[in-house]
Amino acid sequence: MTEFDLIIRHGTVATASDTFRSDVGITAGKVVALGASLGSAKETIDASGKLVLPGGIDAHCHLDQPRAQGLASGGAIMADDFESGSLSAVFGGTTTIVPFAVQHRGQSLRAAVEDYHRRAGGKAYIDYGFHLIVSDPTQSVLKDELPSLIAEGHASVKVYMTYEAMKLSDRQILDVLDVNQRAGALTMIHAENYECIAWLTEKLEAEGKTEPRYHEDSRPMAVEREATHRAITLSEVAEANLLIVHVSGRDAMEEIRRARARGVKIFAETCPQYLFLSTRDLALPDFLGAKCMCSPPPRDPANQAHVWQGIEDGLFDIFSSDHAPYRFDEGGKLMYGPKVSFSKVANGIPGLETRSALLFSEGVMTGRLDLNRFVALNSTNAAKLYGLHPQKGTIAVGADADIAIWDPQRKVTISNDMLHHNVDYTPYEGRTLTGWPVTVLSRGQVICHEGELLGKPGQGKFLKRFRAKKGGTAWT
Amino acid sequence: MTEFDLIIRHGTVATASDTFRSDVGITAGKVVALGASLGSAKETIDASGKLVLPGGIDAHCHLDQPRAQGLASGGAIMADDFESGSLSAVFGGTTTIVPFAVQHRGQSLRAAVEDYHRRAGGKAYIDYGFHLIVSDPTQSVLKDELPSLIAEGHASVKVYMTYEAMKLSDRQILDVLDVNQRAGALTMIHAENYECIAWLTEKLEAEGKTEPRYHEDSRPMAVEREATHRAITLSEVAEANLLIVHVSGRDAMEEIRRARARGVKIFAETCPQYLFLSTRDLALPDFLGAKCMCSPPPRDPANQAHVWQGIEDGLFDIFSSDHAPYRFDEGGKLMYGPKVSFSKVANGIPGLETRSALLFSEGVMTGRLDLNRFVALNSTNAAKLYGLHPQKGTIAVGADADIAIWDPQRKVTISNDMLHHNVDYTPYEGRTLTGWPVTVLSRGQVICHEGELLGKPGQGKFLKRFRAKKGGTAWT
Amino acid sequence: MTEFDLIIRHGTVATASDTFRSDVGITAGKVVALGASLGSAKETIDASGKLVLPGGIDAHCHLDQPRAQGLASGGAIMADDFESGSLSAVFGGTTTIVPFAVQHRGQSLRAAVEDYHRRAGGKAYIDYGFHLIVSDPTQSVLKDELPSLIAEGHASVKVYMTYEAMKLSDRQILDVLDVNQRAGALTMIHAENYECIAWLTEKLEAEGKTEPRYHEDSRPMAVEREATHRAITLSEVAEANLLIVHVSGRDAMEEIRRARARGVKIFAETCPQYLFLSTRDLALPDFLGAKCMCSPPPRDPANQAHVWQGIEDGLFDIFSSDHAPYRFDEGGKLMYGPKVSFSKVANGIPGLETRSALLFSEGVMTGRLDLNRFVALNSTNAAKLYGLHPQKGTIAVGADADIAIWDPQRKVTISNDMLHHNVDYTPYEGRTLTGWPVTVLSRGQVICHEGELLGKPGQGKFLKRFRAKKGGTAWT
Amino acid sequence: MTEFDLIIRHGTVATASDTFRSDVGITAGKVVALGASLGSAKETIDASGKLVLPGGIDAHCHLDQPRAQGLASGGAIMADDFESGSLSAVFGGTTTIVPFAVQHRGQSLRAAVEDYHRRAGGKAYIDYGFHLIVSDPTQSVLKDELPSLIAEGHASVKVYMTYEAMKLSDRQILDVLDVNQRAGALTMIHAENYECIAWLTEKLEAEGKTEPRYHEDSRPMAVEREATHRAITLSEVAEANLLIVHVSGRDAMEEIRRARARGVKIFAETCPQYLFLSTRDLALPDFLGAKCMCSPPPRDPANQAHVWQGIEDGLFDIFSSDHAPYRFDEGGKLMYGPKVSFSKVANGIPGLETRSALLFSEGVMTGRLDLNRFVALNSTNAAKLYGLHPQKGTIAVGADADIAIWDPQRKVTISNDMLHHNVDYTPYEGRTLTGWPVTVLSRGQVICHEGELLGKPGQGKFLKRFRAKKGGTAWT
Repeated sequence: MTEFDLIIRHGTVATASDTFRSDVGITAGKVVALGASLGSAKETIDASGKLVLPGGIDAHCHLDQPRAQGLASGGAIMADDFESGSLSAVFGGTTTIVPFAVQHRGQSLRAAVEDYHRRAGGKAYIDYGFHLIVSDPTQSVLKDELPSLIAEGHASVKVYMTYEAMKLSDRQILDVLDVNQRAGALTMIHAENYECIAWLTEKLEAEGKTEPRYHEDSRPMAVEREATHRAITLSEVAEANLLIVHVSGRDAMEEIRRARARGVKIFAETCPQYLFLSTRDLALPDFLGAKCMCSPPPRDPANQAHVWQGIEDGLFDIFSSDHAPYRFDEGGKLMYGPKVSFSKVANGIPGLETRSALLFSEGVMTGRLDLNRFVALNSTNAAKLYGLHPQKGTIAVGADADIAIWDPQRKVTISNDMLHHNVDYTPYEGRTLTGWPVTVLSRGQVICHEGELLGKPGQGKFLKRFRAKKGGTAWT
Repeated sequence: MTEFDLIIRHGTVATASDTFRSDVGITAGKVVALGASLGSAKETIDASGKLVLPGGIDAHCHLDQPRAQGLASGGAIMADDFESGSLSAVFGGTTTIVPFAVQHRGQSLRAAVEDYHRRAGGKAYIDYGFHLIVSDPTQSVLKDELPSLIAEGHASVKVYMTYEAMKLSDRQILDVLDVNQRAGALTMIHAENYECIAWLTEKLEAEGKTEPRYHEDSRPMAVEREATHRAITLSEVAEANLLIVHVSGRDAMEEIRRARARGVKIFAETCPQYLFLSTRDLALPDFLGAKCMCSPPPRDPANQAHVWQGIEDGLFDIFSSDHAPYRFDEGGKLMYGPKVSFSKVANGIPGLETRSALLFSEGVMTGRLDLNRFVALNSTNAAKLYGLHPQKGTIAVGADADIAIWDPQRKVTISNDMLHHNVDYTPYEGRTLTGWPVTVLSRGQVICHEGELLGKPGQGKFLKRFRAKKGGTAWT
Repeated sequence: MTEFDLIIRHGTVATASDTFRSDVGITAGKVVALGASLGSAKETIDASGKLVLPGGIDAHCHLDQPRAQGLASGGAIMADDFESGSLSAVFGGTTTIVPFAVQHRGQSLRAAVEDYHRRAGGKAYIDYGFHLIVSDPTQSVLKDELPSLIAEGHASVKVYMTYEAMKLSDRQILDVLDVNQRAGALTMIHAENYECIAWLTEKLEAEGKTEPRYHEDSRPMAVEREATHRAITLSEVAEANLLIVHVSGRDAMEEIRRARARGVKIFAETCPQYLFLSTRDLALPDFLGAKCMCSPPPRDPANQAHVWQGIEDGLFDIFSSDHAPYRFDEGGKLMYGPKVSFSKVANGIPGLETRSALLFSEGVMTGRLDLNRFVALNSTNAAKLYGLHPQKGTIAVGADADIAIWDPQRKVTISNDMLHHNVDYTPYEGRTLTGWPVTVLSRGQVICHEGELLGKPGQGKFLKRFRAKKGGTAWT
Repeated sequence: MTEFDLIIRHGTVATASDTFRSDVGITAGKVVALGASLGSAKETIDASGKLVLPGGIDAHCHLDQPRAQGLASGGAIMADDFESGSLSAVFGGTTTIVPFAVQHRGQSLRAAVEDYHRRAGGKAYIDYGFHLIVSDPTQSVLKDELPSLIAEGHASVKVYMTYEAMKLSDRQILDVLDVNQRAGALTMIHAENYECIAWLTEKLEAEGKTEPRYHEDSRPMAVEREATHRAITLSEVAEANLLIVHVSGRDAMEEIRRARARGVKIFAETCPQYLFLSTRDLALPDFLGAKCMCSPPPRDPANQAHVWQGIEDGLFDIFSSDHAPYRFDEGGKLMYGPKVSFSKVANGIPGLETRSALLFSEGVMTGRLDLNRFVALNSTNAAKLYGLHPQKGTIAVGADADIAIWDPQRKVTISNDMLHHNVDYTPYEGRTLTGWPVTVLSRGQVICHEGELLGKPGQGKFLKRFRAKKGGTAWT
């Protein structure tokens, strides 16, 4: 037996199913052996007392998107590009990211993807793919660009039911669902009813209710519930799978449960902000609530409890950051001014670096979540749903050696100073967590260890992603 | 690196999470290495083109239970003891069984366990544990026997809501739930409302409705729904986890969904008979319907579809046979005579040997179920819930080498002649399946290969089972 | 005590609450006394053995609507104007109708109402009001016309979620709901998702599925469920009451139940076609299914049973005909040709004359419905919801003497020959009913007796309708 | 036309359906005419500015029940007999009461009824019937006594799922349901799970949690939900109608909604204590919480809101007091001592006199409830469900002239001093209401006017009650 490039020794390895003591043998960037006591290697990492987990996959993050009117962002500048964004990911134990290649109206989808390749090229520290965002499903997009881009390795497509510049009509969504399903892509959907939001916003503003806390009143749970139910119905009509992103609370969750109970294959994502932030944060004084504004908004504590429930019981498949990096300044959140109406504040919060540790500390270390379910939410399920498995998302023979070694006892107090994104705040400032990824490997190479950066921009490669054929038998 | 005892080479390994090409290195009965190309071994099995799966765990089967009045069985004789039962299991790809040690009223629970150890001793081909059945929760059982037996490795306890000789009152169930939860055992429950069944049976018989097809009328879905809801409520009141065994259809499933949606930790099992048999089988002429009589009864095709739905969507955690081996003769099913009322027919059907292949053929090979979900249902989840994991239920470093090597293309037509149980029929006679376990290993030893028996009675050992502590972190 | 104009003697009177033997004393067109044995009168009707019921109110019927493109009707000609329509109503025991004054896009709402007054003037045999249909909610409609027309006695406004020429966007619906609620009108909504229907229609037609039976596939229950849920959400957002018209089956009913359970005031209507017709009728050979085409379509028998359930248990408040009088000829149903695609067939069926007797025969005479619930559905509830009570909809002191005297034992076999509409068929041809209204009074005058017409066109008056103020105490 | 005995002039009359200005003509104790201006009468009451409503029917009240062990009451003495109880009813505007004739174990049901006739005889100021309570359904009760007593005019039978001395097994409940349905009686059920309550009580007491506020913890909503679901299932199995008494909150209501949605005819009652009292009252200091102890207990404010919702939306058919008159002294509530455990406090609160005015003031006068729905809840529905209609429960020709004339503007501040029961407290002390019944008539005779008693004990007569035959047509 030949020498391994690297052995991670003496750690406790966990997958989405199992937890076991094992060395991990790595050669040519891949896991090639697991064993109680593997042979020799050029390099060795001692993981005694540590957890050896698949690197995180953050499959919902926004990086370096071009400015545009009519978005949540109102045209604000994204503070993170692929370099700072992926750097921040690395330090949070994330080894794969899937940001979005956004088609703007009138633009060719392929042009949007090409633009995005240029933005990512040479910058990323870790591997990445692109979800496609379709905002203009012309005949050429539906018949030509979309099928061919999916065939080239973009196994997921996002559509919006809100935002002036992004939203599709129900019929357009049906068309996209149908094309995706036949071409092998999973459709992701932002489910909020645009017209209700616009109507409520106008009403609230007319009543002088413009502080950040009214953000939640302008897009209440009922409005998300409506869009969720409608999106599910569209997936039933088109007979196509659907993933609801950033589900924020009980009523939307109930729609998903009902759909599954009648046999509809709906997947669901939630985000840290629905576990760790609430309407109380939106109501912080001095406009500070704006720092926690995202859409859907954080809900009340009762809804937080429901989201935890869904994290525990399997309702949610995916746990993502929805990282939307706007600085709290006049180029970002406050581009329309310092104390404008909530409707003029750029929507979104940063979270790439804190996502995994928040869930680990409050989920695994409290006993709410077992370690395998954590791995599934943090990594494996995203790999499976978005066509990255078994290359990514697990520690198994043949998989890429994308690994985060966690010290489960490490205490870390979050401060923006320690984070590596380009945003000037974190909504989790001052929170003390237990457990942190101390060593991170991308394809077998240590890219970060105990706070030291060892990787380089441009190491990350574009990932072609293909979903398993429906009804197929996965191993053939 | 030392030589392995055995290497299974070139197969496709699957766990509840992952599927990958890997050799499996086995030493001293355990999996010690997984790798693309492991070194040398004393023995080698070539698994090219085959699936290397964790051996099945059948956690709901009845073997060699003493005869008793007032049961489903009406005192019929069980045709299978630990020898024939475990033999049948082996040939179906099952490597662990967990039958029941039944306390009869007036009996000490410990005495029941000891009796069961005697019955199992020297007979089993594969490892086994006992679920305890409590039918008489005296103070001594609750305060002494139950906690100490759980502490000795019986991490699961079953109670009945029906059968004259078995049923507990709600208050007794609360007591058992409470003791189990504090002592670390999972409570399993047979949920049907005894008094409704008795009332309906009397009414049907008074109307001359005594053929086997009236079995379903005597215990309709509403009666199972009622008991399921009540059992769940008892688990809420006692703040104790609960597993509902042999769920047969939609209404009971809905109670489980509702409970989970409000945060109650309920686990659920179903069985092949609710996927593959229906009321149509109960209505077979010439009293042949009696061959398919079990409780709860097979339901109508709409309910079958719902059970499939729950198999696919994660509602069900466990898939067991509920093997209850009564021959279709005067010592078994027909002990009260050849054409008696349905209420006098011994309840139960055989299924240890056909369980896994039925699900594989109709689930995996049709594309309904992915292979990992099959592994979870067939093996891993039972190991986790019943305190056998990570020793059993997976192929991972450190686990027992209990492995079934499946030929996914093998066509097998079920006939009772080919089966190894002692029952004189199978309800699945004539059904052709695709996929079969062709080689089976128990702790690293091949016990069956291509229809040839290579193991011996008595090789199987008793398994002490302990559940992970609630709220604990499993790897510590 | 002065002499009455008329006494109906010896009948059994029923209201939505009570059934009692009483004479009914009528003077100046109003009920002025009820009593076991009233005094003398100029005229007397002997109602021995008969039921003296409030005349029916058909609050959903289309008469003499101008032709328009983009409608269900595809521009077909309505066969009934106010004269033939109200005549048909009279012979079916209906004494008040509320058809629609339809605003077409670009038209002033007031102009539409004025046009409708012209169409009705001098023609109706019975009293009538107009629901307003808003298809173009301009600022002038919302701020001026709608509030003033409501203030002038149009207490109900209908909007559509489907039909190219009629459908409003969600935001427009919110605006109309809001104006209506503040001005005192009830909003009615046709709830089907236009875009799903268009998408499915195109798909079905592309597959060559064009026969009438595909009408139901083009607008399946899920599409109605979606729109119903969305409409309810809009009413929650706008904090305005809503009535869902022509609910066709289970899934939409479930949305209504859920809404009520969370405290939303939703009212619901169904129609005879959802009790008495089904997809089997749509599948009649020789294009005859087109005679039963309406939207939403009749559903399968399981849904029929659910609609009956809602009739019995109070889910439905209103029972209307949705009379849409298209002849089965080239000017009506078949205006695009004899065997065109289902999407080219004018949608709608006649039913003004048969509505009450169908419900009486199949509901009251079978024991499913008590007589008081029949009165509520047939008359009283519509009066209450649409601002006609206590003038219409009951037999009480002070109410208009709009009365139908029913012979509960009269056998009538429906044939189109006996009906008084201008349509050339009835979907209920050949059905034998028990119970029929044999004498009908409008404001104290007998307008029809034993098949003989005694009234005259133009007797009917326009009714100003005002709803009780929300939160008010009705008797003050 | 002959002179009336009495005319109530110029009032506003309301029934469960209608509200109208009318005189009410009364002769021989019955309403014989309604009219805008009736003729002459021996006596006249001027009801200008007042509401003329059917007298209240309190169909759930306990009077003069013999002491018994094992009850909620623990053998406490009932402070009210038929004289004081019916007197209290009169002053609250109630003109019919239906208390309970309780069979104790071992007792003949007929003997219980005869005993109850003796207790009522010569005492009641108003008409009364008896619900039968079956606690010992022997064969003789089921086959003989129950059918014959129902045939003699006891159209309702209550059973208990809790209380040691009262509770029936599921099978006994099935038997009683079956007999009742066939004999024409409605079954009423107290739905709480006895064994859960006993288990929780023991646990709470072992933990020293004995104050009145733990009463609610000993019988939480889940325990009521369970019994409600089970009771409904029993009614489905027996195919018999069922009325759930004193429903206290959301979860039980949801079971009722679900049952109705699947077509099961379930009726439901709630009581003032679930609208006006809450767990906060149970937590009053100095053991005062015991004054508000009843079963099921008052719930939290969220549940109060749900009960209001059910009052408004039609979920509840009946609104009763569940008057259980125990004094707050050593013969009543505190018979086991002054500060005993909650489990030793007699369960029940007084409410006959305050029931109607509480609902009127907080329901009708706030605009939550329309006047007709108030009449239905206060009177008509009970008459219909319990076989008293049309004799009682309405103001219609032929009905008994049981009438309460309300001054809707009268302000009354509740104090126990003003009440006429024999209990020494009211839980509503100090509450100011708007609206009060100022004049009350029983069969045409004024028995109370402006606080003055004009009736006499013994005027009230026993009412034979018969339910309409299922499936029958009520007017024949």
